[in-house]
Amino acid sequence: MKEKIPTRIYLTEEEMPKFWYNLRADMKDKPEPMLHPGTLKPVTADDLAPVFCKSVIDQELDETTRLVPIPEAIQDFYRAYRPSPLIRAYYLEKALGTPAEIYYKFEGTNTSGSHKLNSAGPQAYFAKEAGLTSLTTETGAGQWGTAMAMACAFYDLKLIVYMVKVSSEQKPYRKALIETYGAHLIPSPSNTTESGKKILASDPNTGGSLGCAISEAIETAVKTDKCRYVLGSVLNHVLLHQSVIGLEAKTALDRYGIKPDIIIGCAGGGSNLGGLLSPFMGDKLAGKSNTRFIAVEPASCPSFTRGRFAYDFGDTAKTTPLIKMKTLGNGFIPSANHAGGLRYHGMNSTLSKLHNDGFLEARAETQTDVFDAAIRFMKVEGILPAPESSHAIKAAIDEALVCKKTGEKKVILFGLSGTGFFDMTAFASYSDKTMNDYIPTDADLERGFATIPSI
Amino acid sequence: MKEKIPTRIYLTEEEMPKFWYNLRADMKDKPEPMLHPGTLKPVTADDLAPVFCKSVIDQELDETTRLVPIPEAIQDFYRAYRPSPLIRAYYLEKALGTPAEIYYKFEGTNTSGSHKLNSAGPQAYFAKEAGLTSLTTETGAGQWGTAMAMACAFYDLKLIVYMVKVSSEQKPYRKALIETYGAHLIPSPSNTTESGKKILASDPNTGGSLGCAISEAIETAVKTDKCRYVLGSVLNHVLLHQSVIGLEAKTALDRYGIKPDIIIGCAGGGSNLGGLLSPFMGDKLAGKSNTRFIAVEPASCPSFTRGRFAYDFGDTAKTTPLIKMKTLGNGFIPSANHAGGLRYHGMNSTLSKLHNDGFLEARAETQTDVFDAAIRFMKVEGILPAPESSHAIKAAIDEALVCKKTGEKKVILFGLSGTGFFDMTAFASYSDKTMNDYIPTDADLERGFATIPSI
Repeated sequence: MKEKIPTRIYLTEEEMPKFWYNLRADMKDKPEPMLHPGTLKPVTADDLAPVFCKSVIDQELDETTRLVPIPEAIQDFYRAYRPSPLIRAYYLEKALGTPAEIYYKFEGTNTSGSHKLNSAGPQAYFAKEAGLTSLTTETGAGQWGTAMAMACAFYDLKLIVYMVKVSSEQKPYRKALIETYGAHLIPSPSNTTESGKKILASDPNTGGSLGCAISEAIETAVKTDKCRYVLGSVLNHVLLHQSVIGLEAKTALDRYGIKPDIIIGCAGGGSNLGGLLSPFMGDKLAGKSNTRFIAVEPASCPSFTRGRFAYDFGDTAKTTPLIKMKTLGNGFIPSANHAGGLRYHGMNSTLSKLHNDGFLEARAETQTDVFDAAIRFMKVEGILPAPESSHAIKAAIDEALVCKKTGEKKVILFGLSGTGFFDMTAFASYSDKTMNDYIPTDADLERGFATIPSI
Repeated sequence: MKEKIPTRIYLTEEEMPKFWYNLRADMKDKPEPMLHPGTLKPVTADDLAPVFCKSVIDQELDETTRLVPIPEAIQDFYRAYRPSPLIRAYYLEKALGTPAEIYYKFEGTNTSGSHKLNSAGPQAYFAKEAGLTSLTTETGAGQWGTAMAMACAFYDLKLIVYMVKVSSEQKPYRKALIETYGAHLIPSPSNTTESGKKILASDPNTGGSLGCAISEAIETAVKTDKCRYVLGSVLNHVLLHQSVIGLEAKTALDRYGIKPDIIIGCAGGGSNLGGLLSPFMGDKLAGKSNTRFIAVEPASCPSFTRGRFAYDFGDTAKTTPLIKMKTLGNGFIPSANHAGGLRYHGMNSTLSKLHNDGFLEARAETQTDVFDAAIRFMKVEGILPAPESSHAIKAAIDEALVCKKTGEKKVILFGLSGTGFFDMTAFASYSDKTMNDYIPTDADLERGFATIPSI
């Protein structure tokens, strides 16, 4: 007889991961290397040393170590807010009338409100261990800035957060939370950097962008003593840290002998989806499963579904190494979207490669459809989802409704990466029906593609 | 050898409570009965029938049933967001350098942001079961309004929430969340009721009060077909539902053989503290423990520490039954305080009785001291606490520091009743040092006491 599956599955502390899982080690066809923009040769640890701290660089460049030990001090940090629950969506299943089993890994029970803390903690710890005294970063929607502020408070490090200006104005409470944790917040673009000044000179009224905030944060890190830069998504060491999501989910499912047929996550830079899918994708690449993987992105910023697979810069000032990725072009400006965490022109290189090679599906959704799904979900499951995470909910509901038609009892797992407590203006605009569903035209995309360097 | 205690203790679904615990059944000296304000005789179920639904009235008046079965449908509701974690505050202990062991029961991981959902679910369920189609209630800080909106969405009931006007203006996002869950929100005082019109006539610019919002919600419930009123604190059936907090905490501690020496909770109407302490207080009353119990209230609204133990109305329009309680007088207007959930003139009758009889200690704290403690806590424990809950943190830290002086290894348990995501203006005013620490003068209190009816 099958054991009754509880609504919420929590691992014991003993079951929590002791290692991160490096998916690249199990890929026969690995993602292309990052290139130095001057020499166009693969970047070396030395190239990255002025920007990132050493442990993180080693992880970024390591394509062969499968299991990377999580330092005891970071396990200790994780125990402050993990394990996160794996939740069986009994109420949603019932409301949909689907034969599918739906599970979601909920990363929003910590104060940062999302999965971002899983990489913020390690990055702050490695900086502290290396003798640094301060860090810089950028934040768009604010989840990453909050996570880094929390991690830096925990490890007693100074932090400067460049927050996309329009976001800092629209989300004063998010700003207050970051500052309450002791971080120094600067709306970007600002006059504190050359790249900021340059952008302000050309457009004094700009609301800023993530790419611009990245440029400012890197510039400040490089010119400050005992300071480095940290990034919350896109890069492979971030995916490595985020593998705790997938590892915990897999242990919890294994306890009950459950194998997911479909795994779904929202994708901005790829950290949440990449973390969730890593161990499951490893099984698929090893021929041990037939799981389908689905990335869900906003129709307003469709890097997977309409982007090019090309080498591009990670920021608008073109200061980063070149990354082979699905990109809309570093100069692409996505239209306003309440899922601020998904407004990025590019995508993690590993996920881009997997998508290109046919292991990862992708779809794009409009805001209104995403919020329809969010409201449906929150009324029965109780949880207020982040607009970003709601993209995954939308696809999970759609797949469950396919099962309703076909009668198939598939197992669907999705990542509920965060909560929407600081996104109430978004929900209000949904209620007021003032939400815009702008989809870029082909001409819009061409303007973005024109900014991709030809190498 | 003592087993290592995990940072977070979660019960299994099997361990979750199947019964609520009715503390009054184990009290030799029971709280005084509620009186009908007209006859001054103990209220009967019939007296309450126009206002509350029957199951709730039965629970309110039942002083003898120790263990009240939790209906399976409500256990199902609880499984949507419970168990809540019992957290060992390892990081806070270390930061304080105290030999004390500190635990807290964290009720803020659900979307309502507090423990209020524990009673909102049952009250909505009992209404649905009784064939009602709508409910009314009031909310101050907004946690209760959110919890009821969630519960009514879950059980498909209409809900009208009278939200204290100043609060609805100061917390537009809290308002948006309540409305997103489908509730109809009316700033109070309003023109939808006679009591609202009366207050507006005498003071058109009033920001409203909890007592006034209660009057409006009751009036609307009584005059609407298939509608009743629900209350989130003060009454004994609410404490009964909230006993899940204490029962879960006790089961978790018992698993490791831990006996708390001191139990601490913030107190506004008493629901969170009463729920947490119930089973532990039962042990104390039975002579099985020497646990100390401490209620912490704001210095601006000191019903325990400076109030009178007297029969008083629960609302400003004097429409409720008379309750024997610690009260500042139904006409007492507390000064502005960011802990909106603690701005109530009275206190639950059971807790009032226990305080009067020497079983429950109480202390009052100013805002600034409370926020000092909150910041200290959040930087090491990671969780952003509600201003209300931070009162308990303040006392827990103080008790831990006493242990540091005496070297005693006491076990301290406190209730972390909720999160502060919708209180960022409060944290910002703390950072800006614009927080007011007004303590009512004796003359202020006398004006309040003058509104207590003499019977």
